[in-house]
Amino acid sequence: MGSAAADALLPLDPETFAAESHAVVDFLDGYYRNIQSYPVRPDAELGRLRTLLPDAAPEDGEPVDVVLEDVRRHIVPGLMHWQSPSFFAYYPMNASTAGFAGEMLSAGLNVVPFAWAASPAATELEAVVVDWMAKLVGLPERFLFSGGGGGVLQGSTCEAVVCTLVAARDRALIMLGGHEGILRLVVYASDQSHSTFQKGARIVGIPPANFRVIQTSAASSYGLTADSVRRAVDADVASGLVPLYLCATVGTTGLGAVDPLRELGEVARRYDMWLHVDAAHAGSSLICREFQDCLDGAELADSVSMNPHKWFLTNMECCCLWVASPAALTSALSSNPEYLNNISTENAAAMDMVDYKDWQIALSRPFRAMKLWVVLRRYGAVAMRAYIRRHIDMARWFELELEADERFEVVVPRRFSLVAFRLRPRHEGDDVEALNRRLLMAINSSTGRAFLTHFVVDNKFIIRLAVGGAMTEMQHVRAGWVLVQEKAKEVGATPGRY
Amino acid sequence: MGSAAADALLPLDPETFAAESHAVVDFLDGYYRNIQSYPVRPDAELGRLRTLLPDAAPEDGEPVDVVLEDVRRHIVPGLMHWQSPSFFAYYPMNASTAGFAGEMLSAGLNVVPFAWAASPAATELEAVVVDWMAKLVGLPERFLFSGGGGGVLQGSTCEAVVCTLVAARDRALIMLGGHEGILRLVVYASDQSHSTFQKGARIVGIPPANFRVIQTSAASSYGLTADSVRRAVDADVASGLVPLYLCATVGTTGLGAVDPLRELGEVARRYDMWLHVDAAHAGSSLICREFQDCLDGAELADSVSMNPHKWFLTNMECCCLWVASPAALTSALSSNPEYLNNISTENAAAMDMVDYKDWQIALSRPFRAMKLWVVLRRYGAVAMRAYIRRHIDMARWFELELEADERFEVVVPRRFSLVAFRLRPRHEGDDVEALNRRLLMAINSSTGRAFLTHFVVDNKFIIRLAVGGAMTEMQHVRAGWVLVQEKAKEVGATPGRY
Repeated sequence: MGSAAADALLPLDPETFAAESHAVVDFLDGYYRNIQSYPVRPDAELGRLRTLLPDAAPEDGEPVDVVLEDVRRHIVPGLMHWQSPSFFAYYPMNASTAGFAGEMLSAGLNVVPFAWAASPAATELEAVVVDWMAKLVGLPERFLFSGGGGGVLQGSTCEAVVCTLVAARDRALIMLGGHEGILRLVVYASDQSHSTFQKGARIVGIPPANFRVIQTSAASSYGLTADSVRRAVDADVASGLVPLYLCATVGTTGLGAVDPLRELGEVARRYDMWLHVDAAHAGSSLICREFQDCLDGAELADSVSMNPHKWFLTNMECCCLWVASPAALTSALSSNPEYLNNISTENAAAMDMVDYKDWQIALSRPFRAMKLWVVLRRYGAVAMRAYIRRHIDMARWFELELEADERFEVVVPRRFSLVAFRLRPRHEGDDVEALNRRLLMAINSSTGRAFLTHFVVDNKFIIRLAVGGAMTEMQHVRAGWVLVQEKAKEVGATPGRY
Repeated sequence: MGSAAADALLPLDPETFAAESHAVVDFLDGYYRNIQSYPVRPDAELGRLRTLLPDAAPEDGEPVDVVLEDVRRHIVPGLMHWQSPSFFAYYPMNASTAGFAGEMLSAGLNVVPFAWAASPAATELEAVVVDWMAKLVGLPERFLFSGGGGGVLQGSTCEAVVCTLVAARDRALIMLGGHEGILRLVVYASDQSHSTFQKGARIVGIPPANFRVIQTSAASSYGLTADSVRRAVDADVASGLVPLYLCATVGTTGLGAVDPLRELGEVARRYDMWLHVDAAHAGSSLICREFQDCLDGAELADSVSMNPHKWFLTNMECCCLWVASPAALTSALSSNPEYLNNISTENAAAMDMVDYKDWQIALSRPFRAMKLWVVLRRYGAVAMRAYIRRHIDMARWFELELEADERFEVVVPRRFSLVAFRLRPRHEGDDVEALNRRLLMAINSSTGRAFLTHFVVDNKFIIRLAVGGAMTEMQHVRAGWVLVQEKAKEVGATPGRY
């Protein structure tokens, strides 16, 4: 489009829309076909892209193929390829054809379901789909709308945590009789909890000194114990502080550890603390019965969250948050400015209507339910369970290989699809930390054949292999194992010398 | 996909991906072609969708055309059609072919640029594109990376407000020497500011009693005045409180009012308050020189935000937040858990690297920059300016029609694309409020020919017509005016009797 056509810009002209959108689909089709030819982690130089692009936005538009060619030439080579089948870092973020279809529908319809009246079907689909997910993962009835609770789709766990912290905080402040109570509120997490809890507590104004990091250990497989929580809480209560919020995790980020919900729930109840269960990654595996024992005691929790955008084929962003008491959430997060009132539905206000703006931080919000609904409709629960189990089988295979190799140790028993391992010391006094750092560096520098990240626990440097890419097949995990062995030899860990 | 194929689920199989994604493009193409045949606002019955859908997620998957057929039959009829050319409510949310292309690329690549190392080109494109936008809207150099500031793409103004409030709060708490200072911090907004400021202040732990709503009036066209702010601040300082944060708006939600940045900036400086400028909707118009006088004094602000997803053809969600001091933001929002460290780039940590996780609430984040970049590349600044001016011309035409009709009054002078109007009283003592309520109800009940919303100021019920849909052409605004006249007559406002 040259400047001559400027005043004829028709942003949603159907002819252009279809032709250009088909071109983008073909571009992505090519990307997926070639993805294995890219280094998983780019060999990027800081600031390089800026030197390739002009200093200012163009005055004149350009055809879509020129733009796509620039994506291919300038952007793609500098991306980390999160959808690569050899991406084993952090926790993978699954894309899928169905998730993409849902995202397209959501972006194309571009409705804003901040209130029921602002897009009734979008609000209702969200309420339906969070109930579906709650049933699939085996949550107690109290987190379903039919059980007096309910769910909402947020963008991230972090937002879900901020919302539940605000709800818990405001409930506590009412009981304490004034805002100065905020100085006495204490949030409890383990040294394995996600950093979002500490950040979230800080965001909502909990004094940083009142965030307790409770140590875990190998003895409890890095899960919290009721005893350790009770000790921390008792000490705080003794010094006049008020226990507010306890974070429990099903599948921690670093090691995949699981906190015991029932015993933590009992402690939380005793001290009137809000219990949040973070199942961001492992939550997806709970659709398989064999993992649902992780939820034993979940009926004692106040809120639960999991991210379908991680391991449930729902492209970014999609986080399910369920609460037992929607009123606790909405009484802390409601706002009713005049410009949002819909006079034609005023009478309905008293009815059983969900206005999701009061369940989250932001007012505006996309139609996220579409994405999760299309994934569930297109694939169905049977195939999703098989998909999750396939990843877990691959991780199990990798773990068995490690166990059969005297050079390696599996640091914590694998439970889901994350394997945490390292090279063992050969001799007393070996600098095994440096050795493992060198190993990970060698793996990740191997011209991008795979990408893994690390963790540190009990001062041990640990390498993490997280299976869960939408394109990851057994052959990629096998190639990953070949790579790990090869690089172990390179850094000096030769078999037969242990 | 039947259950037999369950263990063969290949979520990103290129063949399936292309075929199904093309089908979704065609579905949306059909949606846009037919959009004018749908009532803008659905005639929805609460809970209807739930009765149409099963109680639980399906066990077996289904072909994409079955899913799309259900979208067509069950979902579309219950949607508010935000992309309808006759959607004049709230502020429109623009979709476009380019915005959709960008969203497809972002969702398809599905990378997570939480840190530079986690996807270098995605981080760098974001830094480039927020600089481009800053230049386009004429922001002072201090909000550009080259000027020591910088920008980030958030999901919503609400998130941007929470982040800047946290930055301001933590800076103040350090100066006050302790967390108990939080009880003394005060946030100032006008009675026209967006509700997100009050909600944001509450979220970050400012005592609700310390949120000041400063009254505006017709005399200042509903903009704040320095005097009124100073009076409120002086009173608070006299009672031992600490002024923290002042919200200024360029284009308020209710009426499109503009606060005078220079005089407010001078007050903010004198009292060491953080000044945030919210240009959520009107910010897009600042790409036209004739509106840039609204930014006079913006160099006195600490942060500025605007939403390309409203009026800049960038599908949801995309909010530009610029700050003069990135350090103020990142020192309040940083977290550095071990599992995110990238050992191969540890040495680069000291370098000039932007890790956007420390500029926002959430850790995970989508590749939003792609969307804004594709819009700017594809359309260019010249066409975007023409697009914005076209909407403003349409709003001006509507305003002139109102002014030429004795029955109506334009309540505040139109500045951007929002017209705020109402029926005038015919006789002393007329219940003009009820009359205007009836008028709006009649307009919106007219079998969905258009959708408008209202506002209340100085106890006056006002009807808002906001032009800004991506498909809105002069013919739709004309039809809107015909509808308003027709319904005015229906509710009893006959011409010639005023």
